[in-house]
Order: sequence, then C-alpha cells, then structure tokens
Amino acid sequence: MMKKTSFPLSEVYRLLESGPVVLVTTARAGRANIMPMSWHLMMEFEPPLVGCVISDRNYSFETLKTTKECVLNIPTVELAKTVVDCGNTSGRRTDKFKTFELTPVAAKSVKASLIAECYASLECKVRDGKLVAKYNFFILEVVQAWIDPTLKRPPTIHHQGEGEFMVAGRILHLPSKMTSLARNKNPARRPPRP
Amino acid sequence: MMKKTSFPLSEVYRLLESGPVVLVTTARAGRANIMPMSWHLMMEFEPPLVGCVISDRNYSFETLKTTKECVLNIPTVELAKTVVDCGNTSGRRTDKFKTFELTPVAAKSVKASLIAECYASLECKVRDGKLVAKYNFFILEVVQAWIDPTLKRPPTIHHQGEGEFMVAGRILHLPSKMTSLARNKNPARRPPRP
Repeated sequence: MMKKTSFPLSEVYRLLESGPVVLVTTARAGRANIMPMSWHLMMEFEPPLVGCVISDRNYSFETLKTTKECVLNIPTVELAKTVVDCGNTSGRRTDKFKTFELTPVAAKSVKASLIAECYASLECKVRDGKLVAKYNFFILEVVQAWIDPTLKRPPTIHHQGEGEFMVAGRILHLPSKMTSLARNKNPARRPPRP
Repeated sequence: MMKKTSFPLSEVYRLLESGPVVLVTTARAGRANIMPMSWHLMMEFEPPLVGCVISDRNYSFETLKTTKECVLNIPTVELAKTVVDCGNTSGRRTDKFKTFELTPVAAKSVKASLIAECYASLECKVRDGKLVAKYNFFILEVVQAWIDPTLKRPPTIHHQGEGEFMVAGRILHLPSKMTSLARNKNPARRPPRP
C-alpha cells in the first residue's frame, strides 16, 4: 500500500499528461465502482483541468453524470492484471473493490474513494459537461491530489490496445531555456507543450 | 528517415492514447510550422477523433483555426532534442523545418507536411471547434494515417514537465477476454478503456 501525502495541484499535469492508464472510482447510493480509463488529457495547469471520454455504456458513465464526482487513481505495473480485470467486469454486477482486493480510502472532497494500492489519486469534480451528450467527453477539475512521495519514477502502464501495455521506461533530461516559465500557465510557453 | 506506408484508421488510437509527444505541423500561405504537443486524447476509434489543447499564444493556434488542417507527427527518442528545440522557438520568427533540419513530405489530404523523420504521421482536419474559444480545445478527425511498418515498439517520448521525458519502456502482454471486441467502437467494451 502507498503512503500518500498531499500533492501540489499545479504539478498534477506531470502525473497525467504522458497518458498512464488510470482507475476511475465513483460512488452512487453507497455503491463504489472502479473503471480503467486511457482516454484523458490535461487541459489546464491550475486549477488542473482533465478532459476524458467515458463511454455511455459504462456503469460509471451514469454515476459520473449524476454525482459529478470521481477520483482518478494512477496504478503502477504491479496492478496491471487488476486493471485488466476491472476492465473485463461491470460494476453493475461486481463489487470490484472486494473482488479484486483493492482498498478504498475516504477522499477529502468527494464521495468516491481513493484506491490505497495506487501511487497517486486525484479527487475530481465535473466542471463542464457540454460535450457529454455528443462525445461522452467530461471536463473534470482536480480539486485535491494525493501521491506517494517515496515513489520515484513510478512504473505507470500505458495501454496500447489488444491487451498490450507499455511500461514507463527510462527518464531523459533535456534542460530547456523555458524552464523559468515553469509556473506560466500558458501551455504554449512550456516546451514541449501545445 | 522512415519509410512510411498507409496505416489503418481503426488502429490509430494505438499510436496516440498512451500519450506520446507529437509534433504538430501546419501550413498557412505557404509557411510551414512545427509545434510539440502533449495535451491530446483519443475520442473515438473510427473515424479516429483526437482532442487536443493548443494555446492561443501559439503561432500554430491561429493557423489551425484558420486552415482547419494539421498533421500529428510522432517522433521517437532520437528526435527528443529537436522536439525541445521546436518548443523553444516560434514559427513567427523561425522556419523550423530548415533550422532543425527536418524533411517535409507532401501529405495526401491536407496542406500541412508530414515530417519524414517521424515514425508515424496522422493527417487531420478540425471536426469540431465548439470548445476552442473557452479551452483552446480542438476536436480533430484523422483522415489519413502513415507509419513506418519496419519499426516495432518505437521508443516514443512522453513529456513529464520540467524538461523531463519518459522514454517508452518494455511491453507487457495481458490477454483479455474482451479481445474479440477489438473492433467494437465503444470504448466501454475495450479493456482497459473508458
């Protein structure tokens, strides 16, 4: 299990933008659910905005649409099989916390639980649902972020389809003359960034 | 240089969803430009829809908004320094193809060029600009995709902020009982997928 401490909201993009598989937790009428998700992007640094596509055939879709809250939990490679298992079952019939022996931890700002076994957890509220009807696209605001500070370079997993996952590899350092603009919220001024 | 052949549109999500840094090429009044981007997500399998955030302070923003066309080129680690250099300069003042010795290749369906040195290139047209004003968020449709078929497991780079990049690591195989649904266009039914 990961021992988590608070993590700066302004750094949340560093956890998400390279596309790790996340486990989305939701809670509705006392029922907790977990769903793997790979289709997400950062949209703003601070407050961190995360856009994501969740299919309307998913049990979590209705819950997120109704409760407007979720937690994005970031697993490491040790949880890879559990991630796939969570994707192969539906919260309609399965209590995934129980079935896959994951540990729910009470969140600070939302009803959905953090997953103790994940190295980072981001408490989110739906900020804009304008494109939900057309694209199943939710814009979430991360209101509280948690990370295990003891974990350096966590081996996140990145879905590549057909049951294949890329495991995060080595880190490359390319000092940039724009580093001084690290706190500049405009992605345009942060290489290599839109 | 990569020798490219056509790549199935239905497989495009496998190139993008794990969050590689891409080089966005645009063309306006004969002026070609290149911009690194990390803020993108898959939104549909086929036709492939890709959402992305491009800051309105970027030279490429106006060009994309006006021409409604771009190419998403996916570089490998060999181009990492070039990617940062492209992010540290502006197309307003720099001819990036010339300055960084990249080779433009004529696209099939758009005016923007493919980058020969990138292992994959996706020709895109803006399909929905509804959230451009509020979030600088474009929804692109990939109309033609190119890839170098000789490259297996290309070492893509994944920006993690502050001049750090994760280089794609080993591949993990986790056969899933949902593989038979690989062609199902609903992300909900594809583990681990929203």
